[in-house]
Amino acid sequence: MIVEIIAIGTELLLGQIVNSNASTIGAALAERGFDAHFQQVVGDNEDRVAETIKLAMGRADAVIITGGIGPTQDDLTREAVCAATGLEMEFSEEYAEVLRQWWSDRGRVMPESNLQQAQHPAGAKLLMNPKGTAPGLVIDHDDTLIFCMPGVPAEMEYLIQHDVIPRLSDVAGETAVLASRLLRTWGRSESDIADSMDDLYRSSTNPSMAFLASGGEIKIRITAKAATEAEAYDLIEPMETEVRSRLGSSVFGVDDETIERVMFRLLDEHGYTIATAESMTGGLVAAALTSLPGSSAVMRGGIIAYDSELKRRLLGVTDTTTVVDVETAEQMALGGRELLGADVAVSVTGSAGPEPLEKPQGTMVIGVSTPEHTQAKELRMVGDRERVRTYAVTSALHLTRLALIGKWWKP
Amino acid sequence: MIVEIIAIGTELLLGQIVNSNASTIGAALAERGFDAHFQQVVGDNEDRVAETIKLAMGRADAVIITGGIGPTQDDLTREAVCAATGLEMEFSEEYAEVLRQWWSDRGRVMPESNLQQAQHPAGAKLLMNPKGTAPGLVIDHDDTLIFCMPGVPAEMEYLIQHDVIPRLSDVAGETAVLASRLLRTWGRSESDIADSMDDLYRSSTNPSMAFLASGGEIKIRITAKAATEAEAYDLIEPMETEVRSRLGSSVFGVDDETIERVMFRLLDEHGYTIATAESMTGGLVAAALTSLPGSSAVMRGGIIAYDSELKRRLLGVTDTTTVVDVETAEQMALGGRELLGADVAVSVTGSAGPEPLEKPQGTMVIGVSTPEHTQAKELRMVGDRERVRTYAVTSALHLTRLALIGKWWKP
Repeated sequence: MIVEIIAIGTELLLGQIVNSNASTIGAALAERGFDAHFQQVVGDNEDRVAETIKLAMGRADAVIITGGIGPTQDDLTREAVCAATGLEMEFSEEYAEVLRQWWSDRGRVMPESNLQQAQHPAGAKLLMNPKGTAPGLVIDHDDTLIFCMPGVPAEMEYLIQHDVIPRLSDVAGETAVLASRLLRTWGRSESDIADSMDDLYRSSTNPSMAFLASGGEIKIRITAKAATEAEAYDLIEPMETEVRSRLGSSVFGVDDETIERVMFRLLDEHGYTIATAESMTGGLVAAALTSLPGSSAVMRGGIIAYDSELKRRLLGVTDTTTVVDVETAEQMALGGRELLGADVAVSVTGSAGPEPLEKPQGTMVIGVSTPEHTQAKELRMVGDRERVRTYAVTSALHLTRLALIGKWWKP
Repeated sequence: MIVEIIAIGTELLLGQIVNSNASTIGAALAERGFDAHFQQVVGDNEDRVAETIKLAMGRADAVIITGGIGPTQDDLTREAVCAATGLEMEFSEEYAEVLRQWWSDRGRVMPESNLQQAQHPAGAKLLMNPKGTAPGLVIDHDDTLIFCMPGVPAEMEYLIQHDVIPRLSDVAGETAVLASRLLRTWGRSESDIADSMDDLYRSSTNPSMAFLASGGEIKIRITAKAATEAEAYDLIEPMETEVRSRLGSSVFGVDDETIERVMFRLLDEHGYTIATAESMTGGLVAAALTSLPGSSAVMRGGIIAYDSELKRRLLGVTDTTTVVDVETAEQMALGGRELLGADVAVSVTGSAGPEPLEKPQGTMVIGVSTPEHTQAKELRMVGDRERVRTYAVTSALHLTRLALIGKWWKP
């Protein structure tokens, strides 16, 4: 069953608000295995709203419209549905009574302007919602179900979960379930991963594969559709196994296992505490390590040695004639571990930009010191100051992970 | 001139990410007075992408497409543009050379799969972006400008501001100009500000006023439309003067003068250096202070004393039986100033949550120490861990600003 979402509101076109309703509904539909091919956004203009509804009716089995069903002058979804379907507008005294009752149940008198909500395309059913004052509508026309939802997220969400999804499931009969697994990787480029997955990517549509890049990590999403969740995961499993065997220890986590979570699990398994010694990232690595609740159990603290004098005096760096190099990073990690009394320390020095510092802008050197070993690695990132700093944080966390699982890199 | 935005990506349909690109672009277009009637979202399917492009070309003067121009198999925007326009796909050795040069300028060798980005619909021009590795494209076909933008927000945004908007403005010729002034405030609530501006808000549509709240700051945007930029600013000025006189020193900056920039200017004027001593914010205050290029001129460094033992040993806090209090924050600021050899230090301690620490979750105590005076202030924020930490950073920067302009708060 194909479902299309239309969001109505000039404020969406002007970028004054983000269309979070479409993603909320999209996720609810995907979870139940309904298909979605398109979404549309249109301003508060009756003709154009009608145009989007006609287009959606021509290519979907159900259309979910959000916004434009309140009691004011610019609420024109009802009129647009009439224009798109050719249905007459009706006033229902019965619905007016339902509305009056809704208000009086809450100890209030309905404002007269709300009577507009008893107007509806012929044959429409009211969908009452306890979250607000605008009831939804459902119209069954020409084998297409048209749902009109309020634009207010909480009201919309209630109706989607309690009314729209059950009705769609009824009509669709048994539906399929969509399940997905997210494999999180670090250390290989997006194009490199895509190259090595090319045959898998092309050979299968169920399960299907997608690549997502963010903050220096590449995520591989494997999605399958089946009658039950268990069957969907059965389809996912062989592809997941194959991907994992090709990518080895580049895969560091699954689903919601972020690198921060993985690191905390590893530190906890070793009974280790951790500390940071940062220059170019200026506190961002420590901020990442303290972003999770309960981080005080393993995180001791950190030193931000932005000035070279602090690198020498606090961290024991012997020579700061140059600071973007492996020796400095190793000494910072060792010195930070000692000063802060931690089992493990991670250090970052480098050239964030925009001006180059000793080495080309985007150069970063990350050091890790554990009770077993101390080692640093020089990396390079393309991008502006913010992107370079973000990438340095991710790299620092990932190199610490590699050290904790005993996979030290080649010097 | 009518512009239509198409966002490509199955992850948008599935609700895995929100279509923030569309609102970013929508806002940028609205600011320059371009019209938008529709937006579309479509999955990674060549035929359907081509369908959306055809539809948009039929009703808009320019089409902005985001996503699907990376180097992987599911990047099919180029193919879809060819299908929609009937243009041939070409491989340009010249563009391949530009791409290779782009990589080699950054000291790296281009992965072979990135050569796909030298493929383009006949007649397309590359739009290089310094933020990442996927160049945009612009195609002038049948009196319609088609822009292909990367899906990564930072890269997309750069190209929109530096390339797309100027090209659209060139084609549109002179239009009415929209100018706006952003007044940045801190220390008063949104409803308090809205109440005190109510008469101004209601009395005028040109200039118009809008309120934006983020990270504890309230921004007031005054927007005017006129034939020239100078005339628009003439309309803005009287309202700006009135707003400023009502809000006094709550207004800390204008337009792109973030609190970080304002602080750096103040530090520079005093010839002061700064340092941080953080607990609950775990490095975020230092990260904010090092986010600007050239921050090393005033920023010495910081201590993250997450563990109480470090508060005592490094910062000289005398008693850590309790740590979420004014005494601890003042000693942290003083101790940080001394250890790090800075003229000014700012400290943060508190209860970020989710579990309360000594005081209710959301309590924060911020200390500022300057050569003249040392003082702390307890604040409270409602929200989750992330929101509380963000608000603590903003508050720390703002209290430091107040100290630097001699407006110490009442104890």
